[in-house]
Amino acid sequence: MSDIYEKVMDLAKRRGFIWPTSECYGAMAGFIDYGPLGAMMKRRVENIWRDFYVIEEGYYEIECPTIAQEAVFVASGHVKGFADKMCQCPHCHEFLRADHVAEGGGVAGAATMDHEVLAAAIASCRCLACEKVLGKVEVFSFNLMFRTSIGPGSQRTGYLRPETAQGMFVDFTRLLRFYRDHLPFGAVQIGKSYRNEISPRQGMIRLREFTQAEAEIFVHPEEKVHPRFSRYAEYTMPLLTAQQQQAKEPPLTMSMRDAVDNRVIANEYVAYYVALTHEMLVAIGIRPDRLRFRQHLPDELAHYAADCWDAEVYSDRFGWVETVGIADRTDYDLTAHAKHSGTKMTVFIQYSEPKKVRRRRIVPNMSVLGKQYRTKAKAVFEALSKAVPGTDGADIVVDGETIRIPPDLYEIRDEMVEVRGDEIVPHVIEPSYGIDRMCYAVLEQAYDEDIADGETRTVLRLPSSVAPIQVAVFPLMNRDGLDTIALEITTALRKEGVLAEYDDSGAIGRRYRRQDEIGTPYAVTVDYDSKEDHTVTIRDRDSMKQARIAITSVPQTVCALIDGSLIFTSLSP
Amino acid sequence: MSDIYEKVMDLAKRRGFIWPTSECYGAMAGFIDYGPLGAMMKRRVENIWRDFYVIEEGYYEIECPTIAQEAVFVASGHVKGFADKMCQCPHCHEFLRADHVAEGGGVAGAATMDHEVLAAAIASCRCLACEKVLGKVEVFSFNLMFRTSIGPGSQRTGYLRPETAQGMFVDFTRLLRFYRDHLPFGAVQIGKSYRNEISPRQGMIRLREFTQAEAEIFVHPEEKVHPRFSRYAEYTMPLLTAQQQQAKEPPLTMSMRDAVDNRVIANEYVAYYVALTHEMLVAIGIRPDRLRFRQHLPDELAHYAADCWDAEVYSDRFGWVETVGIADRTDYDLTAHAKHSGTKMTVFIQYSEPKKVRRRRIVPNMSVLGKQYRTKAKAVFEALSKAVPGTDGADIVVDGETIRIPPDLYEIRDEMVEVRGDEIVPHVIEPSYGIDRMCYAVLEQAYDEDIADGETRTVLRLPSSVAPIQVAVFPLMNRDGLDTIALEITTALRKEGVLAEYDDSGAIGRRYRRQDEIGTPYAVTVDYDSKEDHTVTIRDRDSMKQARIAITSVPQTVCALIDGSLIFTSLSP
Repeated sequence: MSDIYEKVMDLAKRRGFIWPTSECYGAMAGFIDYGPLGAMMKRRVENIWRDFYVIEEGYYEIECPTIAQEAVFVASGHVKGFADKMCQCPHCHEFLRADHVAEGGGVAGAATMDHEVLAAAIASCRCLACEKVLGKVEVFSFNLMFRTSIGPGSQRTGYLRPETAQGMFVDFTRLLRFYRDHLPFGAVQIGKSYRNEISPRQGMIRLREFTQAEAEIFVHPEEKVHPRFSRYAEYTMPLLTAQQQQAKEPPLTMSMRDAVDNRVIANEYVAYYVALTHEMLVAIGIRPDRLRFRQHLPDELAHYAADCWDAEVYSDRFGWVETVGIADRTDYDLTAHAKHSGTKMTVFIQYSEPKKVRRRRIVPNMSVLGKQYRTKAKAVFEALSKAVPGTDGADIVVDGETIRIPPDLYEIRDEMVEVRGDEIVPHVIEPSYGIDRMCYAVLEQAYDEDIADGETRTVLRLPSSVAPIQVAVFPLMNRDGLDTIALEITTALRKEGVLAEYDDSGAIGRRYRRQDEIGTPYAVTVDYDSKEDHTVTIRDRDSMKQARIAITSVPQTVCALIDGSLIFTSLSP
Repeated sequence: MSDIYEKVMDLAKRRGFIWPTSECYGAMAGFIDYGPLGAMMKRRVENIWRDFYVIEEGYYEIECPTIAQEAVFVASGHVKGFADKMCQCPHCHEFLRADHVAEGGGVAGAATMDHEVLAAAIASCRCLACEKVLGKVEVFSFNLMFRTSIGPGSQRTGYLRPETAQGMFVDFTRLLRFYRDHLPFGAVQIGKSYRNEISPRQGMIRLREFTQAEAEIFVHPEEKVHPRFSRYAEYTMPLLTAQQQQAKEPPLTMSMRDAVDNRVIANEYVAYYVALTHEMLVAIGIRPDRLRFRQHLPDELAHYAADCWDAEVYSDRFGWVETVGIADRTDYDLTAHAKHSGTKMTVFIQYSEPKKVRRRRIVPNMSVLGKQYRTKAKAVFEALSKAVPGTDGADIVVDGETIRIPPDLYEIRDEMVEVRGDEIVPHVIEPSYGIDRMCYAVLEQAYDEDIADGETRTVLRLPSSVAPIQVAVFPLMNRDGLDTIALEITTALRKEGVLAEYDDSGAIGRRYRRQDEIGTPYAVTVDYDSKEDHTVTIRDRDSMKQARIAITSVPQTVCALIDGSLIFTSLSP
């Protein structure tokens, strides 16, 4: 299976997982359609994500628009900084990412080069499209946000969001009130995000429109202690730290408790979500030996992030692919939005008991100063109260003019005041998942070929929890009442919320193959014995083993097999 | 409750249903955020929609991008025709929808007026913003699609989709193959759509970014007979037909069977989804007396639609609001896309047995014509086979040149041929739901005030199926082990998939009020007796009645109350 990507995508197209978008007009790079089975699988992956974050963690989901006004992305830094370095091939005129050209030509360190240096460095590299040596090119910045105009006339600029995160930051004060002013709290979003990639060439891996699932967890900056950390304290896995990478050493295998205690991972929150992500990715079908957690190197780490770990999944085609990022974003986002919007984005943290604090207060001699400065008096009082007086008086600035107030016109009092608490800017822990990349990885890793009845069988070994069709129901023959029984079983399964597909066309072996290929974990066949003894055959996709169960127990058995509370081998053959 | 809109929106903002978007930068008209409770409620509404269309009808969901290339919307007619008539107030410079100005000024028939006539008609109307008489204005078209550019350089034009429908039309050939080339079949999408409204002033009713749930059902044009029509044949409701509206008569109350038989509704498919929509809207909490089905008038009906019915919901603020549209779009969309894309979009319908058809065939005299036309001979044979010969020969056109072939150089044979079936273009039945409008209607109709403990109580009378929080759990006191029991009950409920909220803060009466206000249908209270007799109080939101049940039976009882299989009054007090 040298070219598993081709095989997976061929199957995905043929059977309705993934389609090129608006294919009849010439598909568009960077956009895909999820067909009937793909959309179902994607929804299951999203709902597993919700089980972890909404149900278990208790973080509520919100839904912000995908279009936002320019001010949001000015504050977040995206208008200025969310750009790739681009160049145009002078031969074929294709636009290229300059860093990808550099990488292709074996030039290291492109990320930190400025435009001129990078242009010089890639002159001897080949175009990624026409493969000619580039020669002299210009490197410039290309902002990756899709831009549009809102409303007529004034043409207010809007952007399609490049991440769902900003919606949660901008809603901070509303969220804080919803959570009754207590830290920690979290909000999540699952939805579309957009990046106008220069030249996307990697199918589902680099999309211009993609689905993100992001959680923003607002925590006390000095208390990054997850209340349920014990759940993952002993969870052990290989960690590819920045230090290991730099020393070209293999990952360190350790528990989350040790990782935090030894400062390998910055704090309990980050470690907790590293472990949770590992558990979730394995649950949807990623093999542990094709999954690694890699810490950002100092030069990769965003300037505002205190720590960041990527979950990378190995793909036969694409190598290690970043699929999830777990970052401590500190107070960067809230501070930026507070500053740009003029809105207070802090939490009042009350002390367990009020503190007495010594505070110096400057009390102006109102009557003298009032007479002396008249209309300016109020401004003088105000400036004076904030002044730092020297021995020969206090210099204050009023209306641009510096005035020295002599010491006899004010009094300095040292007072004890009671302070009830602090206003603090929370830090943000952000686990951010690329749903499309997860879906691709699930498909690639599930793809398998084996031998059945002497022929090559294509089978998607999807976990039951993500398989689009959960069980197939076949009447051996489409007559003699077998079809009626099979339809009744299908209806009974659907009533239990199981997605059952009824299929009565073609030889039974062919029907099994059709279901194997789309990953349906179980199939139920109604035969002539079923009419006599009221039992049916149930078949396991992976082992192709069969068992005989009562018709009445089908829904309950299938549900138990799907949720994992029953294993197939425990059924009597 | 004269201004119920203000009250509903105040509650929605305060409690986290609906928030103005990016409020800290000045909210944007036509965009909203769903807060934690609103997003949960919206998801429940969407999942009820899925129960009807995906689970029961068996139409698979697909997911297409929200950005599509220009060609799609050239074919669909949106680039040319999806526009509103706009004018600008010469006094306050506000952009206005000219038809809204006309309506406000009592000018009828704006929809069918051309730009000049409409400009003249609204000259005496008042601006909707500054209320001055407009005077001389220009009326022009404003396309409602949000436009953007895809990729760098060539700046390929893309649009944010104005409806999810086009994705399903464009995927027709893939869908047909998925459904193994058989009619009828359907596909659905739930997702964002966008309309760059000129001046949205109606909160959640007129959004620039909104969520649609659309089904496209592909049917045989001569067999618009729903296979499960019997389900709704006797479903009876008032129908406001085009004729009743024109005659200013009240709606006709009749069954779907009669509506189809009497040609009040065009066919069984449209009638089936009219009834299904009625059932669904009532299920999510729309009162039947505030719901009507109105047929499009001849001048409202899109030129391609054979019939269209709107489900309109009455709002105290906005009057009758179009919330769902159910249309027979005929073969308009598939024909347009087939023509523009050059892709065949037909279904081969095999006859039950092959038909013998008489067919005239022209057989050229190959040897003579071959010699005469040499390199052109093949083109001549081809043109001749399609020609309609006269008595003195056949005129054909080859490479732009008209050639007359004399009758002795071909033979006309009348043959009987066997035809196995027809290639037909399916018709499309489209039920299209505005999810945001449904959510608003649910909130408005659920809003109520009554008297509890001598005080005014605000209560959202949401059906259990859409209430964001399904049950609240309170320890009477936050000590003596009552909190532990209450937390255990909360966990047990969540394990059953019930969204339970634990709340231990404030007086019990205040906690009830908080939950009443967000529509939580049930509350469970743990008190000191609970420690002795292992029972708890369960309270019904609407009646405020209480009953006593065993702690162990809480999950099962709450589940049964929520799914409607148990009614509260059957519990012993």
